[in-house]
Amino acid sequence: MSFNTFGKLFRFTTWGESHGPAIGCVVDGCPPNIPLSQKDIQMDMNRRKPGKSKFTSQRKEADKVEILSGVFQGKTTGTPIAMIIYNKDAKSRDYETIKNKFRPGHADYTYFLKYGIRDYRGGGRQSARETASRVAAGAIAKTVLNKLIGKKFKVTGAVVQLGVLGCNKKNWNERIIKNNPFFCPDKKSLRLWEKYLLAVRKAGSSCGAIIEIRASGIPVGLGAPIYSKLDSDIASALMSINAVKGVNIGAGMNTAFLSGEDNSDEIRNIKGKAKFKSNNAGGILGGISSGQDIIASFAVKPTSSILNTRETINRKGRNTKISVRGRHDPCVGIRAVPIGEAMISCVLLDHYLMHKAQCS
Amino acid sequence: MSFNTFGKLFRFTTWGESHGPAIGCVVDGCPPNIPLSQKDIQMDMNRRKPGKSKFTSQRKEADKVEILSGVFQGKTTGTPIAMIIYNKDAKSRDYETIKNKFRPGHADYTYFLKYGIRDYRGGGRQSARETASRVAAGAIAKTVLNKLIGKKFKVTGAVVQLGVLGCNKKNWNERIIKNNPFFCPDKKSLRLWEKYLLAVRKAGSSCGAIIEIRASGIPVGLGAPIYSKLDSDIASALMSINAVKGVNIGAGMNTAFLSGEDNSDEIRNIKGKAKFKSNNAGGILGGISSGQDIIASFAVKPTSSILNTRETINRKGRNTKISVRGRHDPCVGIRAVPIGEAMISCVLLDHYLMHKAQCS
Amino acid sequence: MSFNTFGKLFRFTTWGESHGPAIGCVVDGCPPNIPLSQKDIQMDMNRRKPGKSKFTSQRKEADKVEILSGVFQGKTTGTPIAMIIYNKDAKSRDYETIKNKFRPGHADYTYFLKYGIRDYRGGGRQSARETASRVAAGAIAKTVLNKLIGKKFKVTGAVVQLGVLGCNKKNWNERIIKNNPFFCPDKKSLRLWEKYLLAVRKAGSSCGAIIEIRASGIPVGLGAPIYSKLDSDIASALMSINAVKGVNIGAGMNTAFLSGEDNSDEIRNIKGKAKFKSNNAGGILGGISSGQDIIASFAVKPTSSILNTRETINRKGRNTKISVRGRHDPCVGIRAVPIGEAMISCVLLDHYLMHKAQCS
Amino acid sequence: MSFNTFGKLFRFTTWGESHGPAIGCVVDGCPPNIPLSQKDIQMDMNRRKPGKSKFTSQRKEADKVEILSGVFQGKTTGTPIAMIIYNKDAKSRDYETIKNKFRPGHADYTYFLKYGIRDYRGGGRQSARETASRVAAGAIAKTVLNKLIGKKFKVTGAVVQLGVLGCNKKNWNERIIKNNPFFCPDKKSLRLWEKYLLAVRKAGSSCGAIIEIRASGIPVGLGAPIYSKLDSDIASALMSINAVKGVNIGAGMNTAFLSGEDNSDEIRNIKGKAKFKSNNAGGILGGISSGQDIIASFAVKPTSSILNTRETINRKGRNTKISVRGRHDPCVGIRAVPIGEAMISCVLLDHYLMHKAQCS
Repeated sequence: MSFNTFGKLFRFTTWGESHGPAIGCVVDGCPPNIPLSQKDIQMDMNRRKPGKSKFTSQRKEADKVEILSGVFQGKTTGTPIAMIIYNKDAKSRDYETIKNKFRPGHADYTYFLKYGIRDYRGGGRQSARETASRVAAGAIAKTVLNKLIGKKFKVTGAVVQLGVLGCNKKNWNERIIKNNPFFCPDKKSLRLWEKYLLAVRKAGSSCGAIIEIRASGIPVGLGAPIYSKLDSDIASALMSINAVKGVNIGAGMNTAFLSGEDNSDEIRNIKGKAKFKSNNAGGILGGISSGQDIIASFAVKPTSSILNTRETINRKGRNTKISVRGRHDPCVGIRAVPIGEAMISCVLLDHYLMHKAQCS
Repeated sequence: MSFNTFGKLFRFTTWGESHGPAIGCVVDGCPPNIPLSQKDIQMDMNRRKPGKSKFTSQRKEADKVEILSGVFQGKTTGTPIAMIIYNKDAKSRDYETIKNKFRPGHADYTYFLKYGIRDYRGGGRQSARETASRVAAGAIAKTVLNKLIGKKFKVTGAVVQLGVLGCNKKNWNERIIKNNPFFCPDKKSLRLWEKYLLAVRKAGSSCGAIIEIRASGIPVGLGAPIYSKLDSDIASALMSINAVKGVNIGAGMNTAFLSGEDNSDEIRNIKGKAKFKSNNAGGILGGISSGQDIIASFAVKPTSSILNTRETINRKGRNTKISVRGRHDPCVGIRAVPIGEAMISCVLLDHYLMHKAQCS
Repeated sequence: MSFNTFGKLFRFTTWGESHGPAIGCVVDGCPPNIPLSQKDIQMDMNRRKPGKSKFTSQRKEADKVEILSGVFQGKTTGTPIAMIIYNKDAKSRDYETIKNKFRPGHADYTYFLKYGIRDYRGGGRQSARETASRVAAGAIAKTVLNKLIGKKFKVTGAVVQLGVLGCNKKNWNERIIKNNPFFCPDKKSLRLWEKYLLAVRKAGSSCGAIIEIRASGIPVGLGAPIYSKLDSDIASALMSINAVKGVNIGAGMNTAFLSGEDNSDEIRNIKGKAKFKSNNAGGILGGISSGQDIIASFAVKPTSSILNTRETINRKGRNTKISVRGRHDPCVGIRAVPIGEAMISCVLLDHYLMHKAQCS
Repeated sequence: MSFNTFGKLFRFTTWGESHGPAIGCVVDGCPPNIPLSQKDIQMDMNRRKPGKSKFTSQRKEADKVEILSGVFQGKTTGTPIAMIIYNKDAKSRDYETIKNKFRPGHADYTYFLKYGIRDYRGGGRQSARETASRVAAGAIAKTVLNKLIGKKFKVTGAVVQLGVLGCNKKNWNERIIKNNPFFCPDKKSLRLWEKYLLAVRKAGSSCGAIIEIRASGIPVGLGAPIYSKLDSDIASALMSINAVKGVNIGAGMNTAFLSGEDNSDEIRNIKGKAKFKSNNAGGILGGISSGQDIIASFAVKPTSSILNTRETINRKGRNTKISVRGRHDPCVGIRAVPIGEAMISCVLLDHYLMHKAQCS
């Protein structure tokens, strides 16, 4: 079972509500003797945290991670690594509205009917705040993979579609991604995206996004057919992120439109190494990594909390209207980039360890 | 761990290779006292089996399921239900080609590099033949759900995109789906689809497809946040099917292009019942079923085994060419319809049982 | 996988080292809407904590539990319950000895060889301090069982053998158990036990113990054959407690000496209810609860840290001697009573939920 | 979850009823490229099978294992290994008695109350016939361990207590074990044991037994603290065997009577290697293997099916009597020897793979 636990050999368990005293996670199964410091983790935390630009929520959180166990004298010990992140800027002003009304597009209604009780403050457990814990776990996974596979391992995410606006993926540039508030990989798109997002926010509306994650330096052979295929686990991992509604591996949904010739990636021996002439498979064949870059993308729906008034019902089942004020991201998809990277890093490490167990 | 096991409380384990003596599966965690006969299962088996029309593989398999345990005097006993399906029409003529060459788009290369050994006959374990076991398990899940939830429970799949050809989903008709070889839901598309697929086959090529699965009669509250969200488990289930490269829940990838107003489904009290004005969420909010129809779709890539010649390498790493003869589906997506239904039925029953455990 | 996680549907994950900043646990799968307060948990914590009498370690720990999530307005919400216990009285004086030498009977040697690194301070992760987290989880399990099954549910443990001294189990008295520092159930044994244990301590030695746990009010039908039998899970639970080397269910090892007639418990209809004439089975038949009291016992080996000098090797593999000073329990078995109760409560709740899922 | 599945990385799932058409198991997670033949498995099957001497059940079963998948050209492929054993000598004469009456000491009562239905023929799923599948899985585990660890790996079991009769364990002789129908390790006990067991059988009674399993050649470091400790998993494995009521690791329950000095095993450097002066720990410290022999023992209660008349109730709850005729073992413990070996082999391989994953 895995209600709040993700992973098989490298596993993390998250806990905490948006407006409780703290959130946190416990990472289990981490290999021992890996150098690890709070700093390694904090770097990724900062990339996800809100309040960084006018394009994300204005909630001010330091999102400072504290390690409580599992690290001794700067190295992992193989025992569980517990991390805690205190909630600082949890404002209660907007409670009364969402306490009694179900926000359309949110899980207010389903949580209430499932459990008969819910911590409504800031969305409680259903809040995207939980994803901070994932980023912390993912930072550990990256650190371990960099140690086990070497520096050639790298995972990079970017927003490739911002609402109705795409970008030219051929211009993918990692330096650009790091230096714009949209994680946009294409310098030429920046200006238009900025104008567009400001207009969306001004209109009291929101927009969706598509995020693409690329992982390179992955060895051949990761993935455990049939029901722990690498792509199956990636799909599960990405779909578990708040607001995600679609997941593609490689050419994804578009493979439906291709012919067999156009889709399958031919193989060539180039200077003694197997090379593929294309990567429609996204680096995964039969659920097993092929040595090509792993490419996965996912769609994040537009923020459901918007200023514009919407119809809904309240706890008593009566018809009412709602307009959600407060601090929200006009496009939650933007902050999903480091989360997607984190989840894929965790899946890859998990399969790296599984492969080592069975096949080395 | 779950290499060849799917599910948590309702679980099935599959085994067997395409050209071995038999394939089969063991269903564990099935509730007791559910009337179940071989016939209940055979019906779904027949919908998946090859050789039914000129649009699917000409391999002739009776795909007759035998129940070996777990059923006594016509009822389940709560103990594991083992099922076996003998391989009958396993022809060996094409072995020599695929024994030494890696078919592009197939898992030949990755299986060989992962395990250092593989049963290449008919694709061995990587063959879609494994999915017959899933259909058997899914038929049991359906039977149990019909008993536990009642007759209002129903799951129906259809091909909604055949290669470059779509159909009008507004014409969705279950009777039509049952009576055409494409599982096409729209009568008006049938003729064009037939012509198209014959042309594809004649050209020695293949095409992809998009399959949509709709499940109705689902109670509110199924789904276990955070890492066993209903949509997360559906994504994992569908992505584990051979040749699937993308999964959508509800509006899926298209949510990226919508505004917050257009995407989130407003709620109304209609005659004392909560009703949603639309279903972009695909019946799932925060990973929990909302009581709306569950809608999921997935893309199946075009059959990789095609007559047209392609470039590849052989086991020794040398460049070579390959043209795969033999009995293949011009569009493997078609036979994926009952498989998708089966997987979603299993996920739903699993979550039904989990919900009963924690929240009833 | 379950390195640091116990349970299936009701699960807890523990973390933390003996002399780190804190220890804690995350309880997952707890049913919602169960009244739960810190106080409910603290009561059991106090029964386990050290420094209560001259017969236990003099380490002074308040062992105050803080709930960080999963409880809202005094009730569980169905989301994970994180608890933290800060380490207060962690003294470092004895570090240098155990840093470089492997204490016989301890896990110093095996942890070091397994992981290549270990937090040696106070035994680190291998310390019995971890069991405080189990008691916290167990207190929640008891609270839930009392709510779900009713007040008839009760679990009580006692020390029935203290080193070479037994007691008369026919005098089992719960009030007595609560009011002596040995959890001894037999008033007549108290004086002798006290003298004996003082002598053991004075001699710089230690002694073992046998603990018996009795759970009553258990419904028939809990237990999931074959590999999650109730007794199998109890055995795993009790054997996972530090220093436990043997586990019995009912008559346990003694069944080997009985005849078939003497061992199997005959059944009678007494006033319309099935009653057993004896309870050699310990309330479990075929891995399933029979409605009788669950009776399990386990042996705790004598404390390995003793004043008397012993032979061992150091980290460099050289022969040396060791005499472990510091604050130790002359009989660690005594404090194992609430831990055993906790583990059995968790197993029972887990199986209660599983049974509800499959068979209700 | 693991109703009918055992293990984590090396896992097997068993199915089948005593008088159904067949029983079987699916082994998953087996490393690839291990030479494996039906013969390797059959050897152990023959050691467990009934009808071999007058001291075991007269049911005549060939217990011939057929491998249906996962082995190709004499080697494992890393895919699931399905095995089937047909039931041949399933006689129905005794059905009517046990159909309506609950045999004391058996799981008839609890299965019926749990599931509301049961296959009563020959005990159905609760029959010890299921253990044939475990022996098959264990034979694979042994083969893999012999390949991975080398020939120094060995696991041997023996009956060390037959009812009221012990034996001198100092005379432990593997050749003797192989050549007597009791798996007795001490030549001097054979004659007395034979007389005793014949008397027990003649009296229409039965007796219990204690089995000891010794595994040598085990590397240091196997075991995953806290909740997958090696001893915890062994306890779970052995307690899951039919009729087992107690499990000891090393000195086991007897450690309760020892002093700290007498119990903890001192360590010495002998010619550059760490050696323990005794093995009360049974080769496990802190849940991790120490490199010493793993020693575990377990008690098997006396056969509950006996000729002598006993009191019980029937399905309608009415008082009645029962005398179980048919083919039974006077001491089921005898045939538990290869089963215990099998379970411990599976646990060891599982932990070997887990250790490789996390710590190599």
